[in-house]
This record gives sequence, structure tokens and C-alpha cells, in this order.
Amino acid sequence: MNKASQFSDEPTRVAHLMKHFLSGQSGSILSSDDQPEIRLTIGADQKDDCAVYEMRAPVALVVGSDYVRGPKFMLYELGLLSNFDLGYYVVAANVSDVAAMGAMPIGILTVVRYPNDLDDDGFHELMAGIHQAATDFGTLNVGGDIGQAERIILSATALGICEVGKVLTRRGAHEGDLLCVTGSCGILGAAVAYFPKQDEKGWKLESSLERALLQSWQKPQARVAEGQLLASKPFATSCQDTSDGLKATIEQIGEASHVGFEVFEDSVPLDPAVEAVAELMGVEPLALAMSASADFHLTFTIPQVDSEVCREAFDSMSLNFHIIGRATSHDQGIRSIGPDGAERSLPGVAWKHQKNDISTLVTDVSPKS
Amino acid sequence: MNKASQFSDEPTRVAHLMKHFLSGQSGSILSSDDQPEIRLTIGADQKDDCAVYEMRAPVALVVGSDYVRGPKFMLYELGLLSNFDLGYYVVAANVSDVAAMGAMPIGILTVVRYPNDLDDDGFHELMAGIHQAATDFGTLNVGGDIGQAERIILSATALGICEVGKVLTRRGAHEGDLLCVTGSCGILGAAVAYFPKQDEKGWKLESSLERALLQSWQKPQARVAEGQLLASKPFATSCQDTSDGLKATIEQIGEASHVGFEVFEDSVPLDPAVEAVAELMGVEPLALAMSASADFHLTFTIPQVDSEVCREAFDSMSLNFHIIGRATSHDQGIRSIGPDGAERSLPGVAWKHQKNDISTLVTDVSPKS
Repeated sequence: MNKASQFSDEPTRVAHLMKHFLSGQSGSILSSDDQPEIRLTIGADQKDDCAVYEMRAPVALVVGSDYVRGPKFMLYELGLLSNFDLGYYVVAANVSDVAAMGAMPIGILTVVRYPNDLDDDGFHELMAGIHQAATDFGTLNVGGDIGQAERIILSATALGICEVGKVLTRRGAHEGDLLCVTGSCGILGAAVAYFPKQDEKGWKLESSLERALLQSWQKPQARVAEGQLLASKPFATSCQDTSDGLKATIEQIGEASHVGFEVFEDSVPLDPAVEAVAELMGVEPLALAMSASADFHLTFTIPQVDSEVCREAFDSMSLNFHIIGRATSHDQGIRSIGPDGAERSLPGVAWKHQKNDISTLVTDVSPKS
Repeated sequence: MNKASQFSDEPTRVAHLMKHFLSGQSGSILSSDDQPEIRLTIGADQKDDCAVYEMRAPVALVVGSDYVRGPKFMLYELGLLSNFDLGYYVVAANVSDVAAMGAMPIGILTVVRYPNDLDDDGFHELMAGIHQAATDFGTLNVGGDIGQAERIILSATALGICEVGKVLTRRGAHEGDLLCVTGSCGILGAAVAYFPKQDEKGWKLESSLERALLQSWQKPQARVAEGQLLASKPFATSCQDTSDGLKATIEQIGEASHVGFEVFEDSVPLDPAVEAVAELMGVEPLALAMSASADFHLTFTIPQVDSEVCREAFDSMSLNFHIIGRATSHDQGIRSIGPDGAERSLPGVAWKHQKNDISTLVTDVSPKS
């Protein structure tokens, strides 16, 4: 027998269902010992018009906003993602943008609107996902907007701080710099290509791979430690997160930095789940790894001379990255270099915001010849 | 003959339709001469992952996010508000929260998602409204998120700065303090009570009043100057904007400050358009002025001893406020004091976020006895 659903009004939800997520945050010191003091003097627990930070600077404040489709995620519509997962995702997506600038997150503001048929348990799950993600990324949900709408609407703003002059941008890559990525990409896109077509196509991957595909959407990790490491050292010349897909990210860094790139096909890390889905789809694994996928890895460039010291710095923090290419002159464009030295355009389909559905993009990838 | 509609993709819209709104903002100094330097080093024109501010502090950073119903505004659905108006409104609503803390706005991040049937002209209007509001409030639209959705979705985050220790909160009012408001409230609620029922009820106000009702939604003004004035002087003990309606605002300040209030009915300023709509509805003008209405006036408290110096400070900047009541002990609650000294509960219906539609609330106001 199901427990009867409760539908409390907004003041009750704020007062009772969210209170334990927010209490005690005002007064928190958010910076570490060696940084200028950042104190959250008014947090969400104070229920004022805004959150307030006191900053003993100078400091670079980094701030970005992302809406996420949330309830329109195909895997949510299929019942494979929970409200908790949506809450987690909206935070990860926003913190990722701050991480890509090399900043330390100091807070997130979340817009959570929900329909009348989202009961108290569903609402609590959503807020719990937000809280868990904020906690995992070492930050706080300091406010935002809660209220009613005709469906779940999720958006957020992440704030971070960085030492002045050390913010990582997309525009500093030079010819000869090495192109790097913090991990294998494309798994979120692969999940969207796999699950909705599974029944129609009779696809059945082994359960460990299915779990990996699903987990990619459940707790996507913003690369906060990697971003901060890159900002703290002098070697990264550009950085961007891969939330538009790896190919699109490489193109955008190239455009912003006015360089081209050659990508060494053999060096691009491939996730086994991406390889398995690519095989089912009859497409090249590299193409799927490059295509639209809301991964939150970091793509960055470093001068070749710094590659060893960068590797040592990553190793010392048990972090990893892969060198997957090299910056060239801008007029050479973005090229893919095969193991035999053969050149071609970089495969994969970049995320086009204009289209609504990752799966249509991924299936645009041309079949293996 | 209508001009054929164009539907450019998102990169085209960003590159061509928004460019003139954003260009040149990076490098702007946002603080005035007597304040710590705040420089927007990376603005929306750089198209990076985030906006970046360099802050020579110490400084209090004030930040809040509001979603607005936008396309679900009844007057938009009736064709009385344009896309420009929606864009203007989302900025005003967010800047208002920063103004209520006494901060100077330093930027706004806007989330603008739109359906496939919003053509380039409609999109441009929306962005023009955002740009105009940011300009009117002395700030910049420094980034956010543009993209597709199944309908227009509008949300924003406003950032502001204030001198450390001078932020205005809701929680400092003391017994005996005077209760003040920067202008007459309720006109946005009155507009929503009037226009949708006009045909059904055969209502026809004179055109200057109709215009006033409509204009209240078209260019709502965040009270930035008033907020900064109050923060710069030592006299305001609490402050909040009236976006939930005046009655709700008074209740919330009372709750946060642990005081009660007596409201002097004769002193509450009434807009002629609110009076006219109240008459048509058969309700008390005071009740309509107190009820749910997304006005952006500021309600604040000052010690009685400071009322003259506060008046002089406002006068010197050609600003105005009205003293409408006095803080009492908390256990006296919120009371309304009539011209004859008779006491009653404060009339009006507070905004409940749980209900979707201001008009149902406003029409909940009990008829005049």
C-alpha cells in the first residue's frame, strides 16, 4: 500500500522540508586558510531578499548561470532518473562552469519551480539532490527561488572565487600547446542513444555497462579540484568544460584562442560503455566520444615544456589527464590524425542548442564505413 | 503584408541579434569613485564559461535569483504585454532584491529559453527589454543562458555590492520604529484584477487610468537609488521590497525582526488607479493596495528620531517615502488603525506562491461591508 502523498504549500515546504539543508550556513567562512577571507554573512537560512558575502579581497569573482532541461531529460521521462538526480545535475552543471574558470565554488543559487502534482516527497528528493551535490562540490545552496509552475523548472547560478589574474579562459592557447582532457567523454550522450532505443532495437548490454551509462547522469562530477589546480599553477593557457561535447569544446577553444588543433585519435580516452554503445549503433567509438554529451570534464591546453610538471602536479593530488592533441595555426582548422598518420575532419556531431534532443544528434553520427 | 518571420539558430542569434547589447562590456569599471574598484574583466562579450569580476575590497557581495512567470503573466496571455516587457520585468524583479539590501547592482545574469515559434524579431525584443532595464538600473547583462525550450522561460540572478556592514536586512526593526514605504502599492495587482474581467463585467475606466495600470507592468522600477541611500546612512533598521504585496512585506519584516506593526490607514498612499479598480470590484481601496501585487517599492523602518534627517536625505535626491505605521511589540501582531482609532486586522490578501494567479487572490479580497 502506498503512503498517501502530501502536498504542503510553499511556506511549509521551505520551513520544514528544506530547513535541515540550509540551517547554520550564515556565518560560514568559505575560503581556505591561505586565501582572502570570504564569509557568507547572510545565507538561505536567513530568508532575506538576497544572500550576502563579505569579501576581504582583492579577489576575482566568477559567476555563471545554466538552465537545465531536467524533467525534459529523456532518461527522466523514461523513469530512469529520479528527482534527486535532477537536483544533483543542475548543481553539477553550474559548478562545472565555475570549475572551468579555475575557481573555488563559494555558493550556488537554485531556481526550483514545480507543478501541483509534485508531492512533498518528490520535492524533498529534488532538494536533497541539490544539497548533496553542493556538499560533494564543497559549497552551499545559499538561496534562489522556490515556487509553483506548470512543470519542474530548474536553473541555477554558481559563484566562485579565484586569485586575481589566475582565472582560466578559453582564449590563451598558443600554437604548439598540448591539448588535454581530464577523462573520457561521451558517456552521457551514449546513455541517451542507448536507453530510449533499447526495446525497439533489442539491445542488451551487460549490466555493469548499463549501470555505468545510467550513473553518468546520476552523479556527474564537476572537476573542481582539477580546475583549481590548473589555476594555481602557471601552465594552463586555456580551459573549458566539455558540457557541449568534446568536439564542440575543442572547436570553441580553437575559435576563442585563434588556433587550430590536431587530435591524435589513438590518444583520446574511450569509455568501455561508449565503445559498447557505438558498436550497437554501428558508429565509430571516437565519433560517439566526440559528440554531444553533457559531460563535465575539463579540456585545457598547456605549453609542451610544462607537460611533465603538470603531470607531477596532477599525480600529487591523485588526479589524471590525457594529452589528446596539439594546437596548430588557426588556418589548419581542427583535424583528426589517425594511427597511420592519415588526416581527416574530427568525427562526431557537436551539440546544437537549437535541437532539443541529444539522441537525434548522436544518431546523426554517420555509420562506420 | 507581414514581413516573413525569421528563425535563426542559437549561435546566429547570439552572434548577430545580441551582439550590440553586449559588446564592449569587458573591462568596465562598475563602482563609483568613492567605492572599492569593481571591474568586469570578462563580460558576456567574451563568451566564456562565466563572467568574471575583479574586486578590490573589502566589499559585501549581494546576490539573488528570481524566476518570473513571464509568458504566464495574465496580461501577456491577453496580448497586453510584449516580449520587450517580459525582458524588462525579469531584470527589474531581480535588481529589486539587490536594491532591497541597499546594494549597487553590478550585473545581471539572465536565463532566456524560448520555443521554436519565437522568431528573430520576438527574440530580439525580449533581449532589448533586458538590455533596456539593465541600462535603466545602471548595470549590465553579463551572461547567463540562451537556448531552446518548449515555451519562454525567464529567470535571472542579480549581483550587487555594498559597503561591508551596511547591508539592509529584514531583521533589525525595533519597537517604536516608523514603518515607511517608497510609494503607493497594489497597482500591478489592480491591473490583473481589471483587464481580464473587463469584458465580462463591462468595466471601462478612463484611458489615463487604463494606461497607468498597463504601464505598471511595462516598466516597473526597482528602487535602486532609495536602497543605496538607505544603506549609506545609519538610520534604516530593516528593508524589504514589496514584490509579495505590501501586507505580506509588513508581515515578513515583523516576523524577521520579531516586532508587530500598527498601520495608520489614513497614511497609506493610494494610487488613483487602485482606487478606481477597487470601486469597480466593490472592495476597499486599502485592501487592494495591501494585496498581492508584484510592485517593487521598498518597505523599511527607521527610528522615530531619524525621521527628519531621513526626509531631508530623500528630498536632497528628489526621492520620496511615506510613513505608514509604527513597530510595536511582537505579540501585538499586525494591526490596522482607522482614522477614528478603531483597530482591526490589516486588510488585503497576501501573495501565496502556491496559487498561480494573482487575479484569484485579488478577487478573494472581501467586498466592502
